[in-house]
Amino acid sequence: MISPFHTIRWIGGIDGHLILLDQTRLPVENVYLDCRTVEDVWQAIRRLAVRGAPAIGVTAAYGVCLGVKPGRSIDEVCDYLATSRPTAVNLFWALERMRRVGQVPRDPPIDEAYGGSRGTRHTLQERLLAEARAIHDEDRQQCAAMARFGADLLADLPDGAGILTHCNTGALATGGDGTALAVIFELARRGKRPYVWVDETRPLLQGARLTMWELQQRGIDATLICDSAAAQVMREGSVQAVITGADRIAANGDTANKIGTFSVATLAQVFGIPFYVAAPATTFDLSIASGREIPIEQRPGEEVTNGFDKPTAPADVNVYNPAFDVTPAELIAAIITDRGVVRPVSEDTIHAATSV
Amino acid sequence: MISPFHTIRWIGGIDGHLILLDQTRLPVENVYLDCRTVEDVWQAIRRLAVRGAPAIGVTAAYGVCLGVKPGRSIDEVCDYLATSRPTAVNLFWALERMRRVGQVPRDPPIDEAYGGSRGTRHTLQERLLAEARAIHDEDRQQCAAMARFGADLLADLPDGAGILTHCNTGALATGGDGTALAVIFELARRGKRPYVWVDETRPLLQGARLTMWELQQRGIDATLICDSAAAQVMREGSVQAVITGADRIAANGDTANKIGTFSVATLAQVFGIPFYVAAPATTFDLSIASGREIPIEQRPGEEVTNGFDKPTAPADVNVYNPAFDVTPAELIAAIITDRGVVRPVSEDTIHAATSV
Repeated sequence: MISPFHTIRWIGGIDGHLILLDQTRLPVENVYLDCRTVEDVWQAIRRLAVRGAPAIGVTAAYGVCLGVKPGRSIDEVCDYLATSRPTAVNLFWALERMRRVGQVPRDPPIDEAYGGSRGTRHTLQERLLAEARAIHDEDRQQCAAMARFGADLLADLPDGAGILTHCNTGALATGGDGTALAVIFELARRGKRPYVWVDETRPLLQGARLTMWELQQRGIDATLICDSAAAQVMREGSVQAVITGADRIAANGDTANKIGTFSVATLAQVFGIPFYVAAPATTFDLSIASGREIPIEQRPGEEVTNGFDKPTAPADVNVYNPAFDVTPAELIAAIITDRGVVRPVSEDTIHAATSV
Repeated sequence: MISPFHTIRWIGGIDGHLILLDQTRLPVENVYLDCRTVEDVWQAIRRLAVRGAPAIGVTAAYGVCLGVKPGRSIDEVCDYLATSRPTAVNLFWALERMRRVGQVPRDPPIDEAYGGSRGTRHTLQERLLAEARAIHDEDRQQCAAMARFGADLLADLPDGAGILTHCNTGALATGGDGTALAVIFELARRGKRPYVWVDETRPLLQGARLTMWELQQRGIDATLICDSAAAQVMREGSVQAVITGADRIAANGDTANKIGTFSVATLAQVFGIPFYVAAPATTFDLSIASGREIPIEQRPGEEVTNGFDKPTAPADVNVYNPAFDVTPAELIAAIITDRGVVRPVSEDTIHAATSV
């Protein structure tokens, strides 16, 4: 079943523009943002109009296409886009791929690309757009591969098994059908009737607003809970597996993901429920040894105290609002990637899987 | 320091009325509700204008004073008020005390109280009001006693120690200064400079709206977090103790409290952080053996999907919204009561403490 919305869509050729579904307005309104400058794209990423590690990567790649112009180099544009959000490594990975488009010597020489003749610039821009499209296409394929590997891994779950998830990891979070949620979609496609428990995912309610919306559209049974009710649902025996996405995975398997993921993973271990992560190889950052080195984005306290245009706490209170936390590898039963399942999760198995 | 608001205030004599601070409007507005009928009181309890187990008990006692009239017996009024909320046992305990006012043979005989002469009715109503005032006064004293016992128990915490709490257990939740929060107030009064981590407490945000407000008013350092961030804050080593209130404690020590308490208690155990409950003896229900018998109130899904006067989930989704969960006794390091500290928590120690 094809999802009836477009998270990220490039319209036209090299002089085209980027259309993003404004996820801050969901599920109340389907509003599309028309991004015609790299600044538009930076803003869209920063204010979470588009979010989800793979989707951020794809969006940033298209953002480079909008930003590179005579007098504005690829590096300059990539450096700028890299400041939009700090944690999801897919952003930096996609920008690195875009940078390399400019670094490969070509005929005509790359020097001419900047401020050169119009024809030369177009050539670079064509290559940039082709690369962004390739990143987008590959992400779609990676989603499909994760869905298959994940559904194979969870094939032994009984029909109607409860699967708990946190945040949004579906078609809204990727260039394709999703990471963790795509696994659930694939289980449903195979007739397993998964029953999904959806953490609302404070402060920005990506679970309530986005995951419930995607599941509803696909007709998959789901129940929304407050994040703090996950322990109770687990205790009631309603959860047979937990699956989430990832924003960055260190070489040892420590995984940064939406704040609350570490809580869910810890509780899952207490209750003997397997905790799975689904993420494409682009989410691994082998340059860092462990989760301690993953920079954690601190978001404004207003997301907690004024998140819905209404004050929900006294003015001027201290708020600690990390956007992510890090789940240590030892809590993760397996990482489902587009190249196969990493299990057990260790430096060696990750190295083997990502060097395929 | 005296809190500058009145949670529950009876105005006048037996023909008086009840003023409640409407907690659903906090912290944006200080609005007082004027309850002149028992129906007003029932509504105030049901829609959480007044909440917190001890405060519900005190409020219900005054509600009986408003409800008993010629042609409307104490039992009738108590049966009605008992339907307002199911979990907090203080409600039923307070109503039972009010019922007994009507059961004790007096001169003039109690029979005359119903539909009897005006003088006779006044006599019953005077006794009812005296009993409600006694319940209120005792609750104040119980709060003070818990604060002292709790601060003694936590006396070894270093200055500036982090204490995590969930929901609201202060002067807004009781007839006095609070249960768990009163312990923190007392630590501050003794110069210990507690640093409080406050779970916002979805869905109704009693932590963000009410606890942060009370702590701010008393000048106690506090930081607000999303419920799902508690695990991360614990891992960072910022929490030296967790303390919450209770809505009902079974004979074996299993404790019903705001949804999310069980999650926090489980995480505290994982991190080796002591988890304490503070509750007056009136919160114990020795008639039930374990937490399995505690009825858990299911609240409307709209609290989760529309809690900010704005839809935060698609229409017509399933929601599981239990107002409470049960923390098993084995996760509770000690229960701080107005009669002393129950530690370890077991049927024997509870029996001994509550039969003092």
